[in-house]
Amino acid sequence: MTTSVPPTFGRLAQGGPRPAAGGEAFLDLLTAPGGARIERILSHNAAGPADFWYEQDWDEFVLVVSGAAALAFPDGREQRLDAGDYAILPAFCRHRVAWTDPAGETVWLAVHMPPRTRDVATP
Amino acid sequence: MTTSVPPTFGRLAQGGPRPAAGGEAFLDLLTAPGGARIERILSHNAAGPADFWYEQDWDEFVLVVSGAAALAFPDGREQRLDAGDYAILPAFCRHRVAWTDPAGETVWLAVHMPPRTRDVATP
Repeated sequence: MTTSVPPTFGRLAQGGPRPAAGGEAFLDLLTAPGGARIERILSHNAAGPADFWYEQDWDEFVLVVSGAAALAFPDGREQRLDAGDYAILPAFCRHRVAWTDPAGETVWLAVHMPPRTRDVATP
Repeated sequence: MTTSVPPTFGRLAQGGPRPAAGGEAFLDLLTAPGGARIERILSHNAAGPADFWYEQDWDEFVLVVSGAAALAFPDGREQRLDAGDYAILPAFCRHRVAWTDPAGETVWLAVHMPPRTRDVATP
């Protein structure tokens, strides 16, 4: 017989750290051995520095749950994301946050896959 | 120099298989070696059989992005989830879908963590 941990429930937009205007706040919701991680991000009129790029050795999935934002890429592309829009950012795909809704909090769900460098075997 | 795959974008509610009334439709959005998987689930007035329980050897995170649903548990608990509500279902936590919005499609994002039995090392 296997025992289990009880389920937990929450509202994505509630609780945890809140961003200041112009900032972001991060909250891990679930992590797994091997490096998979589910994170809530709240952004309030946030933009990454123009010369800073995220570049990660893992695939990332981001979903805008409420609010609006845009991601920017080194080739100049800017992709707007409204509520219900997602982006898949493969490992080593450089990106930054161009802007988020200036009027209030934008709620993101980010899923970080295990780092590729840790893969034991790739099919 | 590391080359990368370009990013991709989508609307969670659009494209892919649609559920019939009373049914569900599943679409993998991103998978990783080791077993992590991000899945879109569309449900339309769906309910699992009363005597069937999901019981998985991995942690699952589910978010209702739009619509409404309830999860049921063997102790009789029923947890309603509206848009923006999430559940963390630890490995071996038995659960089923009690109901989803009868009026239309409920959009879920499900994240399946790597199976615990495959972990090489647990900190």
